[in-house]
Amino acid sequence: MTTDRFRQQLEFIMEIDKLKQVYRQTYLTDGSRKENDAEHSWHLAMMSILLGEYALHQDLDITRVLKMVLIHDIVEIDAGDTYCYAQELRAASIVSEQKAAQRLFGLLPSDHAQEFQELWAEFEQRQTPEARFAAALDRFQPLLHNYMTKGKSWQEHGITSEQVIARNKYILEGSAVLWDYALKMIRKAVEKGYLE
Amino acid sequence: MTTDRFRQQLEFIMEIDKLKQVYRQTYLTDGSRKENDAEHSWHLAMMSILLGEYALHQDLDITRVLKMVLIHDIVEIDAGDTYCYAQELRAASIVSEQKAAQRLFGLLPSDHAQEFQELWAEFEQRQTPEARFAAALDRFQPLLHNYMTKGKSWQEHGITSEQVIARNKYILEGSAVLWDYALKMIRKAVEKGYLE
Repeated sequence: MTTDRFRQQLEFIMEIDKLKQVYRQTYLTDGSRKENDAEHSWHLAMMSILLGEYALHQDLDITRVLKMVLIHDIVEIDAGDTYCYAQELRAASIVSEQKAAQRLFGLLPSDHAQEFQELWAEFEQRQTPEARFAAALDRFQPLLHNYMTKGKSWQEHGITSEQVIARNKYILEGSAVLWDYALKMIRKAVEKGYLE
Repeated sequence: MTTDRFRQQLEFIMEIDKLKQVYRQTYLTDGSRKENDAEHSWHLAMMSILLGEYALHQDLDITRVLKMVLIHDIVEIDAGDTYCYAQELRAASIVSEQKAAQRLFGLLPSDHAQEFQELWAEFEQRQTPEARFAAALDRFQPLLHNYMTKGKSWQEHGITSEQVIARNKYILEGSAVLWDYALKMIRKAVEKGYLE
C-alpha cells in the first residue's frame, strides 16, 4: 500500500535531485570544475562529524547540525546560488529563498515541512549554537577550497582580503579554532598573491 | 595554535573532496549526466531523515544511519565505483576497498579512524538495524533514478528484471515498505519496456 504520505516524501526526494545541478562559485580543490550544492552539503556534513569538537558551545546536538547543513541550500533549487560576496543581490535573494522554501518544503507531509522550515530558518538566523556552528562550516569550507585552488574564485571576482574577512568573520561566533585558522589562511593567501 | 590533530582532520577533509569526482553508473533523474558518489551520499542522507519511519526496526539510531550513508562510499576514492551488477568484479573490489579504508581512514586521528572503520564495516556487513536500513536506501535510490530515466543505466548494461530483483532483494531486510515499492517499480519498468 502506497500512502499519500509516502508519495509526498518520494516526490520531495526526486525534486531535490535538482540540487546536484545548482553550481556554486567555488571550485573543487583541484580546480577542475565548480562545485554543486549537493556535493557541498555532503562535504559540510562530513565536517560536522569531524570538527564538532571545535564548536564554541560544547554541548552541541550534532544531529541537528547535520540536518541543517544537509538541507541549508535546498532553497537554491528555485532561488539559485547567490555569490556570497554579491551583497547587492542578497536582499532580493532572501525573498526568493523564502518563496522557494514554501514551495519545496511544502511538497512534504506537514510534520517534515515544519521541521525543515524551522531548521532552515534557524540556520539563516544564526542564533543557536547549532546554527552558528553550521554557518561557520558553510563559510570555512569555501575558504579552504579557495586556498587550495590558489584563490581561483577570488581572482575571478576581484575579491580582496578585507572582503573575505568582513564576509567570513561570523565564523568566530561558531568556532574560535576555525576562525583562527581562517585568518591564518587569509594572511598566507595574501602573502602568496592568491588574494589582494 | 594548529594542533597535529586538527591538521590530520583537515587533511582528510581535503582528501575526500575527490569523492565528488568518482562517477557511478546511475544517471541524475533528468538523465543529463551520471551521478557522483558525493551527491549520491548526500541524497541518501536526506532519505535517511525522511524515510526512517519505514525501517523494519523502529528504534533506529538515525545519527548512526546518517554517518554510515555519509561515509559508505569514501573507499571508492581509491577503489573506484564497482557497478552493482558486475558480480565478477565484486570479490576483487572487496580487497581494494579494504586497502582504501586503511589508507583513507588512516589519515585521521585514531579515534575518528576507528569510528569510521567500524561504521564502514558495519554498513558492509548488514547485520545491525542501522546498517540494514542504510544499505536498503543505498539500493533503493538507484532504482528510483533508473525508473525516472526510463531504465537508462539498465539498458546500457543489458540488465534484466531478474538481476534487479536478485541484487536488490536485501532492501527487505531494511524496510518492507521500500521493498514493496521497489517491486512495484520493477514490475512497472518491465511493463513500460524500461527493463527486460
